[in-house]
Amino acid sequence: MRPIAILGIGQTKIDEHWEKSLRDLALEAALAALHDAGRETADALFAGNMLSPLINAQNQLGALLADWAGLRNAEAVKIEAACGSGGAAFRAGLMAVASGEVESALVVGVEKMTDKAGHDVTAALATAADADYETEAGVSFVGLNALIMRRYMHEYGWQHADFAPFSINAHANAMHNPYARLHQRITVEQFEKSSMVATPINLLDASPIGDGAAAALLVPAGTLGRAAGILVSGSASATDTIAIHDRPEALFLTAAYKSAQAAYKMAGVRPEDIDLFELHDAFSIMGALSLEACGFAERGQGVRLGLDNEIRPQGRVPICTRGGLKARGHPVGATGVYQIVEVVQQLRGECGATQVDGAKIGMAQNIGGSGATVLTHILKAE
Amino acid sequence: MRPIAILGIGQTKIDEHWEKSLRDLALEAALAALHDAGRETADALFAGNMLSPLINAQNQLGALLADWAGLRNAEAVKIEAACGSGGAAFRAGLMAVASGEVESALVVGVEKMTDKAGHDVTAALATAADADYETEAGVSFVGLNALIMRRYMHEYGWQHADFAPFSINAHANAMHNPYARLHQRITVEQFEKSSMVATPINLLDASPIGDGAAAALLVPAGTLGRAAGILVSGSASATDTIAIHDRPEALFLTAAYKSAQAAYKMAGVRPEDIDLFELHDAFSIMGALSLEACGFAERGQGVRLGLDNEIRPQGRVPICTRGGLKARGHPVGATGVYQIVEVVQQLRGECGATQVDGAKIGMAQNIGGSGATVLTHILKAE
Repeated sequence: MRPIAILGIGQTKIDEHWEKSLRDLALEAALAALHDAGRETADALFAGNMLSPLINAQNQLGALLADWAGLRNAEAVKIEAACGSGGAAFRAGLMAVASGEVESALVVGVEKMTDKAGHDVTAALATAADADYETEAGVSFVGLNALIMRRYMHEYGWQHADFAPFSINAHANAMHNPYARLHQRITVEQFEKSSMVATPINLLDASPIGDGAAAALLVPAGTLGRAAGILVSGSASATDTIAIHDRPEALFLTAAYKSAQAAYKMAGVRPEDIDLFELHDAFSIMGALSLEACGFAERGQGVRLGLDNEIRPQGRVPICTRGGLKARGHPVGATGVYQIVEVVQQLRGECGATQVDGAKIGMAQNIGGSGATVLTHILKAE
Repeated sequence: MRPIAILGIGQTKIDEHWEKSLRDLALEAALAALHDAGRETADALFAGNMLSPLINAQNQLGALLADWAGLRNAEAVKIEAACGSGGAAFRAGLMAVASGEVESALVVGVEKMTDKAGHDVTAALATAADADYETEAGVSFVGLNALIMRRYMHEYGWQHADFAPFSINAHANAMHNPYARLHQRITVEQFEKSSMVATPINLLDASPIGDGAAAALLVPAGTLGRAAGILVSGSASATDTIAIHDRPEALFLTAAYKSAQAAYKMAGVRPEDIDLFELHDAFSIMGALSLEACGFAERGQGVRLGLDNEIRPQGRVPICTRGGLKARGHPVGATGVYQIVEVVQQLRGECGATQVDGAKIGMAQNIGGSGATVLTHILKAE
């Protein structure tokens, strides 16, 4: 495909935005991305969203957001892949520009989750699981991840406290990200004493929901903008069974592995070439499994990278440099676009206290379900 | 973009499929399309669906259907554009193959609507309207179309009975389509005496919901299959405001016009070159407005084509040759793919009593909302 670059990025703070509607949040991020690119409009809009039919009684977000963002009559559509919706929308926009059908694609991930009560949100999030074989049995989405975490601890001999570095790193990095949902440092003691959600997952293993939107403008590489474009040098998607019990191995994210391998191949890089990795730490166990699937650690040893201080911005494999899902927050359908935006910020050198020195190549991996839809993107300074 | 062809098609009968799950319906259509193409698998799957989060408690249909159809680990994603979801998924698959990222794309439109009570389905369908400015005011989706129809009758002086030919033609054609939901001829008298839904729209102005799935396999043109490939020679998408009151003209489908014009240009054809037109007759008024927007009739005169017998298979502008939404049925997120499948059947000369003689160029137009997302595709025998 023809080379594609990211010319502009935008994002809102992730919060409980009682004063803003779904479309207003999307607008704020979309206009910021257009402004950042020095553009007023785009040929097409690709919206990433998971929950608006269930939470906001709104479908057809493509048309809605295109109109609201000043792109009336433009091509627009919504992409849904549960919590992987943002990354999937980014890849859809990428293929649209690569096909030559459009010359610019505005990708907008948006989610407004706090308009409903907690139990409604929990039920809505459970649609990411297999309705007939998992949800029907009464298991929630966090419950499924708890089963995986428990099994991982059993198989590889880890204690719950061994996962603490993931959350501590995420919270520490979010302190320097004004768009993050949570601004509070945490300690190992707090991590261990946090309220239980679904044993062994407690509150500090789990990412917070929130309202937010992020956007990126895709154009053919070489196009001039305000800032230098960031090349999308690797892009790949892979899927797995939604139901975890259908997988040959419950503790290995096959789709993450396949998606990462394809992205590495396309970009011509190996894991050791990646300067930072924005991974999908919806729960701390997912951080460990992603590191393993993407070749940064042996199976069962992802936790070790945290214990060895390798995941901090100064470490060998910096992750969650802007707070990750854990502390930047997880507005589900928007998350994948936030990850892209954050990698761009790193490659532009805009991350201040959590800047990865000399970052040239960054990776973002967005996951729908417990590893059912995985999107991996590798970005390079143009 | 590189030329793309449809190598295989498949569909299920539209019905109340109490014995089949959402994934089973999709599987049946997907396997039929693969078999028709002489293939066992595809590189990627693009699912078109609107209501599964609301009706079936299931999101992430891309991964779910890819696994069920034997494409485990393949790239897969769901596209949603309300009732335009099927056409939007088809265009997403098209752009994926055109970009070179995949060499084959299986597009599957699926909807299972009869698992919930009628009022739940009505509420779910209302998510196609503008939640904040239309639905919040209490208007249903059929109610919005009723307002448009009433205004059209007022502006142009038509009577309700003038719309009868649309429904009569659709029902007559569906008699010869084994996959159609309704197999009953209707008369003008029945049309006039039918139960009122939302005045002036009565039961025979409105398409029936149903469970069903349709599929098409996209590959680069020139690829050999069981049957000759059908070229996708025009493809375009456009949007409009979802809220009808925001449009400068409530009685002209601007997005349908723009989408059709772009598709004509890409295909190098004009309206008079189109041998048949599978349009989006969710309500009879939408049939008239689509004919006008696409250049087959002057504004306010779409109804005339029905009264002049031009919309029958032997007419100048054959529409709904397999029954249309009105009688083939309208499983919302699947409908756009059914339209594509039916145009392919016509271009292959497989339509028996409703075959359009010498059909070489066919058009399908799929609409989300009351003209908010419009996908137009022009197909040619390769």
